[in-house]
Amino acid sequence: MDTIKYQLRDDQIPTSWYNIAADLPRVDPPLHPGTGQPATVDDLTGIMPKQLAEQELTLERDIEIPATVRQIYAQWRPSPLFRARRLEQALGTPARIYYKYEGGSPAGSHKPNTGIAQGFYNKEAGIRRLATETGAGQWGSSLALAGAFFGLEVKVFMVKVSYHQKPYRRALMHTYGATCVPSPSTETAAGRAILAEDPDCPGALGIATSEAIEVAMNDPFTNYAGGSVLNHVALHQTVIGQEALLQMDMADDYPDIVIGCAGGGSNLAGLTFPFLGEQLRGGKQVRVIASEPEACPTLTKGQVAYDFGDTAQLTPLLKMHTLGHSFVPPSIHAGGLRYHGIAPLVSQALQDGLMEARAVPQTACFEAGLTFARSEGIVPAPESTHAIRAAIDEALRCREEGRSEAILFGLSGHGHFDLGSYEKYMADELADEGYDEELVARSLARIPAPFGQV
Amino acid sequence: MDTIKYQLRDDQIPTSWYNIAADLPRVDPPLHPGTGQPATVDDLTGIMPKQLAEQELTLERDIEIPATVRQIYAQWRPSPLFRARRLEQALGTPARIYYKYEGGSPAGSHKPNTGIAQGFYNKEAGIRRLATETGAGQWGSSLALAGAFFGLEVKVFMVKVSYHQKPYRRALMHTYGATCVPSPSTETAAGRAILAEDPDCPGALGIATSEAIEVAMNDPFTNYAGGSVLNHVALHQTVIGQEALLQMDMADDYPDIVIGCAGGGSNLAGLTFPFLGEQLRGGKQVRVIASEPEACPTLTKGQVAYDFGDTAQLTPLLKMHTLGHSFVPPSIHAGGLRYHGIAPLVSQALQDGLMEARAVPQTACFEAGLTFARSEGIVPAPESTHAIRAAIDEALRCREEGRSEAILFGLSGHGHFDLGSYEKYMADELADEGYDEELVARSLARIPAPFGQV
Repeated sequence: MDTIKYQLRDDQIPTSWYNIAADLPRVDPPLHPGTGQPATVDDLTGIMPKQLAEQELTLERDIEIPATVRQIYAQWRPSPLFRARRLEQALGTPARIYYKYEGGSPAGSHKPNTGIAQGFYNKEAGIRRLATETGAGQWGSSLALAGAFFGLEVKVFMVKVSYHQKPYRRALMHTYGATCVPSPSTETAAGRAILAEDPDCPGALGIATSEAIEVAMNDPFTNYAGGSVLNHVALHQTVIGQEALLQMDMADDYPDIVIGCAGGGSNLAGLTFPFLGEQLRGGKQVRVIASEPEACPTLTKGQVAYDFGDTAQLTPLLKMHTLGHSFVPPSIHAGGLRYHGIAPLVSQALQDGLMEARAVPQTACFEAGLTFARSEGIVPAPESTHAIRAAIDEALRCREEGRSEAILFGLSGHGHFDLGSYEKYMADELADEGYDEELVARSLARIPAPFGQV
Repeated sequence: MDTIKYQLRDDQIPTSWYNIAADLPRVDPPLHPGTGQPATVDDLTGIMPKQLAEQELTLERDIEIPATVRQIYAQWRPSPLFRARRLEQALGTPARIYYKYEGGSPAGSHKPNTGIAQGFYNKEAGIRRLATETGAGQWGSSLALAGAFFGLEVKVFMVKVSYHQKPYRRALMHTYGATCVPSPSTETAAGRAILAEDPDCPGALGIATSEAIEVAMNDPFTNYAGGSVLNHVALHQTVIGQEALLQMDMADDYPDIVIGCAGGGSNLAGLTFPFLGEQLRGGKQVRVIASEPEACPTLTKGQVAYDFGDTAQLTPLLKMHTLGHSFVPPSIHAGGLRYHGIAPLVSQALQDGLMEARAVPQTACFEAGLTFARSEGIVPAPESTHAIRAAIDEALRCREEGRSEAILFGLSGHGHFDLGSYEKYMADELADEGYDEELVARSLARIPAPFGQV
């Protein structure tokens, strides 16, 4: 029954972000889509401030966290790491299960870790407005929070299916003063083009990203802010894993397995990269597991290719696992995981054998979420239940094999905004939506032909 | 822009609850409604375990917290205390504003502080099921959490208007495995009697309490669990104020004013009683302000009398400020504050001049909540906005008077379940519902005639 919590002091909040690009044997740069040449800082500054563009491309290992950002982090950081003793008991497993909980932030997820950083740099650069995409709304509400803190306008294109599934997330953005429209919208050329082809399109992160980038490109005082995928976003999230390293040390333990849910990849990167960094620099080995939805199986069924991050082909080309930038995933409730691609650094780690990936069905994830809520008390976001599913499956394997392994997973956010989805699950109204093989094949065929250097 | 957080260590979680009854000059006992004699432990054990009945009546000052309860507290305690620097800046006030944040618990409010304790004692006593009332659902979901932790069934009668206003709170109870029905229901004689008189009755905490007590009285393995009002509930919440005392010490400051929202009174008691205890034992003086809704003005318009805690007259008679046990308040969104009475200990403190009370209108509270959310980042529960309204008003007075006073308020819960209410406020769809003077007069007239000893 006892709670075991590992709580760091405020002065143990990391002072720098960890850039795994410094330690990976190979990193492929983003390419300018017109020239096929590696993108430069100047190429990127049309839609983001110079400092973020530099973070996107740098191979430096440690990037100092600005004092202001670190001070704001202190509102909810260091986040706690728990031993899941009641869950272990419920499963009857000899495994030692730990979880790092990011739901204590004002927006209820890990996303403010980068939202605050991006808000800070954009404010410093004299920007007045930020445009972004959001799936389930965790990112949109976190950027809205940053907008409120730094006095920036925030415009959010929210994937249409989530806009209707998650009305409270939308309301949270409004509460912070942001504007939020369902995507595809009629406000951009990218949105109108999609609607002309499919008026009932449920939307996708790639579409919403196109709309946000278009808005940013058309106004010198508006920048784009990305919620995942990009190197600098993954970078900012590494405060999670750096804290977890210290906390596992407090626990006098070290994970055999580290698990994160995978959508765009920043939450997964944030928890696991600092552990992989230890390994890459000669430290202990860990198994890293990326758990993605069966309905959007980027890592398990995608191809590795240079592809666009968005549907309208406005981003640089990113080398990553991709289902093709035109892929529109089924309307699962883990809206934050409905993305055709993945962070290039995560993709590289998977290619390098530093990580394994698995795809899990929606209802099995909600089942895991319910088991977790009833044993540990915290209701997880649908995205996070993908990590819990994998953690429970590993713990059950440990039971079968009689092995006491240490399993650490990332609990990226709470599910207080997602209780409509839980009600549907409990009422047996949720189905497992697999991916449409034909749709994926068609989408894969639309990945741009490689340039010479690919 | 900087965050100032005062975070205690886990070993600073209080080891005992503080019972203000030991220090108040006068405490009137609950009365057996049949005999008019002070209720005994035996009178109470029909619906609660002996240890809680003893806590209800004791005049001992310090009640040891069981180790199991303290260990579970450690999941979210000690809770942080913040200096609201960004709010101070937004208001341009010289006041120093502090808030104690209880929204980090798994249920998102202060209510698990007593839910866990009550679950523990009932489990120890061999009880299988708990029945309770809930307004907005903060209490029902917290008891549901305790039920999940201790393996107890939980049956919640949720005030009908809130049942429909707060679908996510209801879903949270389901997620934890509890059953939840709208009150008045057809499941109890008390509910049926109300429905016969008024089929459209929106419900009230006093009605839902009757239903829960009736269920508990009819089954030896079911107990009643109260979410507020009762002495032992206020007692359990004093972990809040005890921690805040240590944290104000860390801040090298002491509040001139301590503010809590007031419904049943347990949150208010939890924060303020330890400060009043200091004062009563010769320590520093504080102004304590209870902030209640204008639509349910128990402390500002009620009478002090022995009255029932519930509509169907099943509870002992409690000496308290009351609008009459038959009062049905308007359907405001701060459902947790819609109660006709108040904790007798809070009432006594008010009678003794240890506390002042004010009533605030709904829209002014949401306005304060929005100001707070946009400056401090945390979206407050509608109940908590009543404390924020009073804190902001005091801070503005400080600005006018050029005084730098220290103001501490209780932020009892987050508003992530209440974003539908915020949307309505922002869309200008919320009105201020005052109280109906005639209804109050009629209800006051139904307070039972006093026994000789009153």
